[in-house]
Amino acid sequence: MRILLVGATGTLGTALHKELSGRGHEVLAVARTGGDLRYDVTDPAQVTALYERAGRLDAVVSAAGHVPYKPVVEMTPEDYLAAFHGKVLSQIDLVRQGVPRIAERGSFTLITGVLAREPIPTGSAASMANGAVEAFVRAAAIEIAPQRVNAVSPTVFTESLDAYGAFFPGMEPVDLARVTQAFVRSVEGAQTGQVYAL
Amino acid sequence: MRILLVGATGTLGTALHKELSGRGHEVLAVARTGGDLRYDVTDPAQVTALYERAGRLDAVVSAAGHVPYKPVVEMTPEDYLAAFHGKVLSQIDLVRQGVPRIAERGSFTLITGVLAREPIPTGSAASMANGAVEAFVRAAAIEIAPQRVNAVSPTVFTESLDAYGAFFPGMEPVDLARVTQAFVRSVEGAQTGQVYAL
Repeated sequence: MRILLVGATGTLGTALHKELSGRGHEVLAVARTGGDLRYDVTDPAQVTALYERAGRLDAVVSAAGHVPYKPVVEMTPEDYLAAFHGKVLSQIDLVRQGVPRIAERGSFTLITGVLAREPIPTGSAASMANGAVEAFVRAAAIEIAPQRVNAVSPTVFTESLDAYGAFFPGMEPVDLARVTQAFVRSVEGAQTGQVYAL
Repeated sequence: MRILLVGATGTLGTALHKELSGRGHEVLAVARTGGDLRYDVTDPAQVTALYERAGRLDAVVSAAGHVPYKPVVEMTPEDYLAAFHGKVLSQIDLVRQGVPRIAERGSFTLITGVLAREPIPTGSAASMANGAVEAFVRAAAIEIAPQRVNAVSPTVFTESLDAYGAFFPGMEPVDLARVTQAFVRSVEGAQTGQVYAL
């Protein structure tokens, strides 16, 4: 398959690039800086330009999302808006603009995260964004068939425990290898409207 | 209790006003048009003004939320933003600005809806908004204790079947009387971080 990988240069994106390429797929790596294609998907006009540049696609995979972390009472409306633009609207836009462009049975696989279901202090914008994307995935799936859309919702990566482990006390980490397999399940499988919680 | 009721003039708001008043609470009714207090809570500055006007409060109850309905491929980024401002950021702002103002053990009860978990065609913005608010509630709850925050997530009201029943085929409606009791459970009870799915 010819796969557009957005957020290709982060920890997850790098692992996805390797795994999907290793499985024989042609991967077009997108990132704001670095990657084959440099686009900022938080700008709808850049999403349009990206799809025009990318050409025929069988799948779109997103590992991109930025949200601010602060206590609720220190958050501003702008912080929640930044989370909305940075992780929700950007990924919705990949689906919305991608539907008329990708293959008839193509798929979208978005990234959310454990904070949708297991909150941590300072994580209310992340929780909000993840919950929004997961509910969107269930809703969009019933409209875009036979195209498909799923989300992968991992906890902290084992590989990121040194940096982020302290924020997730007592939560079992997940190996990147398991997370990339959830993306493979979405891309190469036939399910839709699923949230793969890992 | 002295309760701020936002969205007091809609179908649900009217029922909540009656039920909460009937249980002996002092209800301050807020709506964009009508109500004792006329404020638009989608504007953070008006939320500030509303709280300053309202004075001491024991609970905040929201029955207010507006989202557009369209097929995914006809939605624009502005439609999703309208849903975010109309149902997500407005309710988050009631919590964010309310925490330093309401009683030490006061509560916030927000409104979401069944589309968070059971999508319908044209409902992707509503699903997104409901999922966002429900995840926010779980996250905010662990930060604001001993203050509390819950969401009520009803399906179509029995009383609204004539107008909206066709959009919810085979989904059991819920009587407004049951929905108002979920709000009572949140306001007068002691639970937090809950989503009451009805």
